[in-house]
Amino acid sequence: MFGGRLEKILKASGLGVRFKLVADTEKSKSIETAVSVIRDLAHYDRRKQVFILAFGGGVVGDLAGFIASIYKRGIPYIQVPTTLLAQVDSAIGGKTGVDLAEGKNLIGAIYQPRLVLSDVRFLKTLSRRQMRTGLAEVIKYAIIKDKELFSYLEARYNDVFRGSPDELQHIIKRCSKIKADIVSCDEREEKKIRTILNFGHTVGHAIEAASSYKGHNHGEAIALGILVASDISQKVKLLSAKTAQRIENLIRLAGLPRKIKKASLDAVINAHYRDKKFIGAKNRFVLIEALGKTKIIENIPLGIIREAIRKRLNPA
Amino acid sequence: MFGGRLEKILKASGLGVRFKLVADTEKSKSIETAVSVIRDLAHYDRRKQVFILAFGGGVVGDLAGFIASIYKRGIPYIQVPTTLLAQVDSAIGGKTGVDLAEGKNLIGAIYQPRLVLSDVRFLKTLSRRQMRTGLAEVIKYAIIKDKELFSYLEARYNDVFRGSPDELQHIIKRCSKIKADIVSCDEREEKKIRTILNFGHTVGHAIEAASSYKGHNHGEAIALGILVASDISQKVKLLSAKTAQRIENLIRLAGLPRKIKKASLDAVINAHYRDKKFIGAKNRFVLIEALGKTKIIENIPLGIIREAIRKRLNPA
Repeated sequence: MFGGRLEKILKASGLGVRFKLVADTEKSKSIETAVSVIRDLAHYDRRKQVFILAFGGGVVGDLAGFIASIYKRGIPYIQVPTTLLAQVDSAIGGKTGVDLAEGKNLIGAIYQPRLVLSDVRFLKTLSRRQMRTGLAEVIKYAIIKDKELFSYLEARYNDVFRGSPDELQHIIKRCSKIKADIVSCDEREEKKIRTILNFGHTVGHAIEAASSYKGHNHGEAIALGILVASDISQKVKLLSAKTAQRIENLIRLAGLPRKIKKASLDAVINAHYRDKKFIGAKNRFVLIEALGKTKIIENIPLGIIREAIRKRLNPA
Repeated sequence: MFGGRLEKILKASGLGVRFKLVADTEKSKSIETAVSVIRDLAHYDRRKQVFILAFGGGVVGDLAGFIASIYKRGIPYIQVPTTLLAQVDSAIGGKTGVDLAEGKNLIGAIYQPRLVLSDVRFLKTLSRRQMRTGLAEVIKYAIIKDKELFSYLEARYNDVFRGSPDELQHIIKRCSKIKADIVSCDEREEKKIRTILNFGHTVGHAIEAASSYKGHNHGEAIALGILVASDISQKVKLLSAKTAQRIENLIRLAGLPRKIKKASLDAVINAHYRDKKFIGAKNRFVLIEALGKTKIIENIPLGIIREAIRKRLNPA
């Protein structure tokens, strides 16, 4: 829909343009696709100064960013994310990568784009399910860093979901700012600052992996991961029942799932233990004490984790 | 020769060790080898904190460093270079990469090792030709940044070439320091500081490429590239005939070639124009005004370049 216009605009500014279409499915995030794009680029790029413009969702951004990071040891690139999930989260922060059979994003780089250009008009073409998957990350940002944004979402939920441009622009701006601030303090996750972005992701990733990425999509799994992290926070006496209830309620309003489908408790627990962030014998969770206030806790007893996950399983 | 001892020492310090042998030829610098090592690593690395130790020459260092840069978006690595060329040059500065059919090092990253550990005892196993290829880079460092090192090489040439540990240690220390200082000012070659390390490399790379990397090895081609750059410096009235003569003399003493074999003038010129550093319509050369004093010059007339290269061809 927007590709033709993009080409026209770029050519009108005097730039040489070469399009490379990539299917927007996780399968495109492979080293083979990356190498094939690079070969193309090497033939095209004789005595030119080239840059890459990643126009698409998270898959395109991750792949294009990774290609930019390794071609000639790094060329400039620009992110133009076209999904809500990419605009509020994946296009910002420089995490790029491709998957291996052995695990997702096992090959990649931290490599920052020169510019991230998000336009709410792109979101008009998204399905309701695609919008919801982005909202899961928006809710995450509100919970970990911005209680005003949380209240805003509670109050204006209908406008946001109807795709009102003003409300969407507001939340994209807030989320982008939060992520950019965090990443610029701790780009390589060495100071436990960037770590809080993993809130809801520890169990969320395990839920995605346990159904071999065929059950819940990323945002849905993250919503479930948020609920589990919130339950654990309550069980270890960090979080009040009232706040936990507000979180569950907002996730319900967003149309995101509160029950895990197509995965057993053991499958989720096993996938959790295979997580690439799981180092040594310790587990590590980002929990919350209140809206906007996180705490990183290690060595949560397995019983508590199991109980919180079991609560989210459909009765067998 | 040293592999077994290395394994014993590492295990004695309580580290888990997994060896991966890679043939020390340019063919190993492929994306296929990199992915195969990474797959192995992913199977080995369940809930461990891993790092890579690159033990070998330039090929091993470039490949291992690239793997470290992209595995899980970057894990730590250590360089233990075992050739003179790697100890004085390639192991320092973080340039890593693999080759494509379309060009050398087209895929790679700038990614610094945590430590570079050079021990002159490794050099005892090198052939005279391998030592000479390292000396070409040593001479380059002396010319661009250290006239005392140049005089030192002229004076103690016999000891250096006989492999006297004290002399070798002195030159490795000097060259490492020069490179580390330059790289830490301009890691990504954005300020024309790191650029001077390319002295002799513009035409040197073209000589390697023109014989499809089957004629001169890297150091030999660089020696020829230094002679061409020095001739051009003289022709554009930057450099005195006397200094140019000292440079040619030191290269002769080092046993390095002063004539190009197995490549025609046109092949070298064409390869030069395909160089990945050649941007837009301009050529760019690192030239010298005196020992230790470089100057970057753009748009050298093609006639001067051809004349300087022709001087180094064997009479047809």
